[in-house]
Amino acid sequence: MLFQNPRNRTVRVGDLEIGPDSPLVLMAGPCAVEGIGQLMASAEAAKAAGATILRGGCFKPRTSPYSFQGVGEDGLEILRRAADSTGLKVVTEVMDPSQVEIVASCADILQIGARNMQNYTLLRSMVAADGKPVLLKRGIAATIEEWLYAAEYILVAGSPVILCERGIRTFADHTRFTLDVSAIPAVKRQSALPVIVDPSHAAGCRHLVPALARAAVAVGADGLLVEIHPDPRGARCDKEQALLPEELQALSGDIAAIAAAVGRRFEVPVSVVP
Amino acid sequence: MLFQNPRNRTVRVGDLEIGPDSPLVLMAGPCAVEGIGQLMASAEAAKAAGATILRGGCFKPRTSPYSFQGVGEDGLEILRRAADSTGLKVVTEVMDPSQVEIVASCADILQIGARNMQNYTLLRSMVAADGKPVLLKRGIAATIEEWLYAAEYILVAGSPVILCERGIRTFADHTRFTLDVSAIPAVKRQSALPVIVDPSHAAGCRHLVPALARAAVAVGADGLLVEIHPDPRGARCDKEQALLPEELQALSGDIAAIAAAVGRRFEVPVSVVP
Amino acid sequence: MLFQNPRNRTVRVGDLEIGPDSPLVLMAGPCAVEGIGQLMASAEAAKAAGATILRGGCFKPRTSPYSFQGVGEDGLEILRRAADSTGLKVVTEVMDPSQVEIVASCADILQIGARNMQNYTLLRSMVAADGKPVLLKRGIAATIEEWLYAAEYILVAGSPVILCERGIRTFADHTRFTLDVSAIPAVKRQSALPVIVDPSHAAGCRHLVPALARAAVAVGADGLLVEIHPDPRGARCDKEQALLPEELQALSGDIAAIAAAVGRRFEVPVSVVP
Amino acid sequence: MLFQNPRNRTVRVGDLEIGPDSPLVLMAGPCAVEGIGQLMASAEAAKAAGATILRGGCFKPRTSPYSFQGVGEDGLEILRRAADSTGLKVVTEVMDPSQVEIVASCADILQIGARNMQNYTLLRSMVAADGKPVLLKRGIAATIEEWLYAAEYILVAGSPVILCERGIRTFADHTRFTLDVSAIPAVKRQSALPVIVDPSHAAGCRHLVPALARAAVAVGADGLLVEIHPDPRGARCDKEQALLPEELQALSGDIAAIAAAVGRRFEVPVSVVP
Repeated sequence: MLFQNPRNRTVRVGDLEIGPDSPLVLMAGPCAVEGIGQLMASAEAAKAAGATILRGGCFKPRTSPYSFQGVGEDGLEILRRAADSTGLKVVTEVMDPSQVEIVASCADILQIGARNMQNYTLLRSMVAADGKPVLLKRGIAATIEEWLYAAEYILVAGSPVILCERGIRTFADHTRFTLDVSAIPAVKRQSALPVIVDPSHAAGCRHLVPALARAAVAVGADGLLVEIHPDPRGARCDKEQALLPEELQALSGDIAAIAAAVGRRFEVPVSVVP
Repeated sequence: MLFQNPRNRTVRVGDLEIGPDSPLVLMAGPCAVEGIGQLMASAEAAKAAGATILRGGCFKPRTSPYSFQGVGEDGLEILRRAADSTGLKVVTEVMDPSQVEIVASCADILQIGARNMQNYTLLRSMVAADGKPVLLKRGIAATIEEWLYAAEYILVAGSPVILCERGIRTFADHTRFTLDVSAIPAVKRQSALPVIVDPSHAAGCRHLVPALARAAVAVGADGLLVEIHPDPRGARCDKEQALLPEELQALSGDIAAIAAAVGRRFEVPVSVVP
Repeated sequence: MLFQNPRNRTVRVGDLEIGPDSPLVLMAGPCAVEGIGQLMASAEAAKAAGATILRGGCFKPRTSPYSFQGVGEDGLEILRRAADSTGLKVVTEVMDPSQVEIVASCADILQIGARNMQNYTLLRSMVAADGKPVLLKRGIAATIEEWLYAAEYILVAGSPVILCERGIRTFADHTRFTLDVSAIPAVKRQSALPVIVDPSHAAGCRHLVPALARAAVAVGADGLLVEIHPDPRGARCDKEQALLPEELQALSGDIAAIAAAVGRRFEVPVSVVP
Repeated sequence: MLFQNPRNRTVRVGDLEIGPDSPLVLMAGPCAVEGIGQLMASAEAAKAAGATILRGGCFKPRTSPYSFQGVGEDGLEILRRAADSTGLKVVTEVMDPSQVEIVASCADILQIGARNMQNYTLLRSMVAADGKPVLLKRGIAATIEEWLYAAEYILVAGSPVILCERGIRTFADHTRFTLDVSAIPAVKRQSALPVIVDPSHAAGCRHLVPALARAAVAVGADGLLVEIHPDPRGARCDKEQALLPEELQALSGDIAAIAAAVGRRFEVPVSVVP
């Protein structure tokens, strides 16, 4: 299997490397791109906390057809502009095979969301991503085996893969999803792929995000994907789980300390007090 | 919501009607289209048991990219030929927006599988189905609300929807999925849409299929989707769960009896002894 | 294993027999014994609907220590009195090894609840039940294997066992528990024991109880355990799920019809119109 | 609620304190007491790794009545002897109200297992524990609310409570149970009680235990309960998940490092190299 191939151990994103032999990577940004002001503030907050990748959704998979569906293609440019002005890379979700080329031309990493983990058409369409890496979220009810085989589809299509654990659906009702931290070491035993963790969607509420992020680093994740918003109350989606800029800063110090404790590096700006 | 609209209560498939005011509908056929011989045998077995719709997958969503992926477009013609020669309608899965037109030109009902329940691109692409009905399977970890909103996407796109419960993923290990029979009355309280049940994928093993099918009829389902194969041992996928033609006949008699007991009709050929 | 022994196929409760070779058995009554008036009304309603066993909890396992814990031993006498005056048997829960003797002296069947399915002390204490049958509910997260081994503890202690499926805990939020109808045929393949179904606790709401009860009979259950209350709004626990006397009557007719359809008998009073 | 009372924030075990204001506590030992040799070796290994509490089961709750059920009361003395000779405290499971007094006379902490979390008779019987603390494991399908109310029963009976997360039952099949790390911060928001984590039962396999233990410390647990065995291959139960003495030493260094990173202390012997 390609997912076991040691050359898939490190994913290169321009001059950045993601994987067990590289420093931890922090990806941060809002759930949805709303406008340039929001994105610039988010990019600066991300940068200030040591993030190297800016996240933000332009196309949003929404349970209801009547919910806000994202600003669409216009968002890609906003995202790129905010990232460039702060020296960040961009990760953003692609939902539709017809969007792959345009997203790949604009973003540094393409994200495939949990609901699309077994959308094989989309997985295969990564052939149009021009070799850009793909962040593959675990489906909410996917086994490790199903997740790795979904990654295999993308690897076959020619794109490197970064896995992302984001919580599974269980009976537990104190979080939106149950973060399965055991998936990180388990997937690392069965594959060579880098694995990051999204504590925000798992928690579904702001106050649990930092603790889950710390657990993710301690368990061996190669990075984090964290939702932030300069004004969470005004966010157009997932307002309950976005961290404030200052909360991300505080988390960043914690991550650096835990990373060091487990023999990993996480480079934080001098402004962050670990 | 369109899913609550009483005019979505009955779905017309040519001269056939599906819904609470119509006789129960039986859809039967193999998991995958393998060849004309297999399909003809399946169609005859389906017909003999009272089925009015022939199922069979041409494009198969498979966990591994290296598994048999279906015979593709060629299968559509085979399916149509077998159905026409026996006077059956055709339901078959569509996985890719680019296939919608061709599938709609060949099939009477388009199926969207559990893994694609929240593949919004695919749901929206039903706009190209020319108003043909869509069978929407419940995702393995979908709530009733998520399922109905997925249906809403299709209704907005202009196609009628038949819901299909096919089991959810739980800790239970004696079946492949846990058939959630309560979903049928629950979904009927919240929507007007017809609901059928696929006992085969839930069971994952032949011997539990008839019991689950009986439960489905008793609980109020408007029809069944059952896997059969003239030679299950030689099947190219899901060989453990396909019924033999004679098992479908026996099941058909049971269904008719239970249907009558709950005030529904299920019309069986005279060859079937209820 | 004793649970596979064919002589455990039929459980005798005085002149009544429970199992696949006997008519379906209906057990009905309130969640909790509240007083003689409530019990007499319940017993009469149960009798009128064809029930042969009266249920009612005297000792209630409650999540909070501050909730109503049942009327205790006094309830046993009330239960017995109401049952005797209507010619019904009695099933009631025992939570504590120290209660086994007194409960066994008063009840015809001892019930072990879902939370106690692996309370091995309690299972073993059935040795004091004087050979009276035990109704063993499935734990909310128990596999078939764990359930059968729990039954084995009771069989070793010398009491016959009737299994009772009452729903498992899953992510699904439209019912309190997900009724796992596949457990009935699955458990019957692996053991000889009779299996009944409690649709009331699974549903958690009145309106889904009849549909789940019908599914249970269709799938092959040997009986039903249904909560009723002469005045559900005034019930001291589980008021949302208790059927009214007239709803039980209606259900009884449905059960008889489905039982007949699957080759089983369910004897209803002439007052019930199937 | 008593579980919210700040005076339940720290649990005293002789001269040891457990809770958020005290150093992390490590409890280690074999799944089952087998003999004095095994216990002495385990106690020394535990001590050498910085553990202050020795665990070991004398009464074992086992799925099958025919499995090894523990050495019983004799084990209590062995456990005490091994602990005393190394200066450790003792935690051991109690399954039966009739054992409470003898266990309380011998152990420093009484453990209530996951299967008994809602065995209210047992919870209430803690009144005979003479005020000794109780380690209450979370049931495999218990919500936070159910767990805290179970603790309330024990607090009402007069014993302090230490909560223990040990994994929940989900569809995931790469571990025996899914460790729900989010439960630790969630439970700490709703109660004052100390919370520890058992990574061994969650993992079900040796190689995942250290990673889960690190996650537990990072997320904010007040201690760990870890299975070790001097010769896991010869263990009478759970042989797959027990760590070797040297593996516990290595883990201990990791714990100390992560504890420091999150502002907690974990005191390790000089022999442990963090």
